[in-house]
Amino acid sequence: MTLKKYFPIIISSPSGAGKSSVCDAVLRKCKDVEYSVSYTTRPIRGSEVDGVDYHFVSEDEFKNMIEQDEFLEWAEYLGYYYGTSRKTIQENLLKNKFVILDIETKGALKFMRNMPEALSIFLFPPSMKELERRLRSRKTDAHEVIETRLSNARHEIADSWHYDRFFINDDIEKVSDKIIEIIYKKSEGKDIYG
Amino acid sequence: MTLKKYFPIIISSPSGAGKSSVCDAVLRKCKDVEYSVSYTTRPIRGSEVDGVDYHFVSEDEFKNMIEQDEFLEWAEYLGYYYGTSRKTIQENLLKNKFVILDIETKGALKFMRNMPEALSIFLFPPSMKELERRLRSRKTDAHEVIETRLSNARHEIADSWHYDRFFINDDIEKVSDKIIEIIYKKSEGKDIYG
Repeated sequence: MTLKKYFPIIISSPSGAGKSSVCDAVLRKCKDVEYSVSYTTRPIRGSEVDGVDYHFVSEDEFKNMIEQDEFLEWAEYLGYYYGTSRKTIQENLLKNKFVILDIETKGALKFMRNMPEALSIFLFPPSMKELERRLRSRKTDAHEVIETRLSNARHEIADSWHYDRFFINDDIEKVSDKIIEIIYKKSEGKDIYG
Repeated sequence: MTLKKYFPIIISSPSGAGKSSVCDAVLRKCKDVEYSVSYTTRPIRGSEVDGVDYHFVSEDEFKNMIEQDEFLEWAEYLGYYYGTSRKTIQENLLKNKFVILDIETKGALKFMRNMPEALSIFLFPPSMKELERRLRSRKTDAHEVIETRLSNARHEIADSWHYDRFFINDDIEKVSDKIIEIIYKKSEGKDIYG
């Protein structure tokens, strides 16, 4: 099979709805997809690795990158900066790879404007109650942060209509299979909306 | 199996995303569910039957019912009135039936406030492009009405977080099976959010 074209893949969801797990599953199953490692100023968490999960940089470094126009999109979220480097995306596409981005909606909308050829997918949780449970079970966030994430989730859902396709993230294996199917469909110029 | 409790079931989706077809499938498969026939002032369409699809009434009759407080919820949508009669719901619940309502979000939110014990389900289309295609293929609406429905769809999606559960309506048989499963789970006091 010859793939006709490569493009970035945007995966967004409210915080806690599992976009990282879905991205991991797509990457594990599909050798044509590479992960776009974002830059962030937020502190590193438990098992995360610098340069693998994120490039962890200082606020000064991040602001310098903004000035040098190195970001295809960047956004502030809960007091920290997150950004996607133009170079990361271009290098992957040149290697004939799809490049998957795990980003929140504000950044995603900017990215879509800059690269309208991207495939954009929005993941809904099965319910808001389940989203809240997943956030609480994560135990990395204080009570007020969880409340903010839930309130943000409502705004993020309101922005979901901008995305190419919607899925409910109720089964990581099934959802990641569907995403891979759509990636190849789009690459072969087939319909991806039905 | 003894069912512990009966409640109304609210099914909402953007216009064209197929809530009526899903309701029909649930009703066909599940003898414990009855359809709540709404009242409306909109004109009757092709194959619709008065008293089955809707109670078609005049604007004067509808306004009189509002004055008599006969509606559990009512709303105006694209210039026509739609309402759910309190009596219809109560009669069905007294007969030990679940009663399914096919209503748009404005009416649904009012209904949830009046009957918080209801099970509320929001159906997303697989994509906005597919929603547009379904609306255009229906051929019952003028171009401007379709544009209005698409614009309304964005607001309806923004209200979706109020609902108990989210589904993508990409397969009527599968979605209706999942809804029936959740109806019985709720009736037996089991968790329905995961």
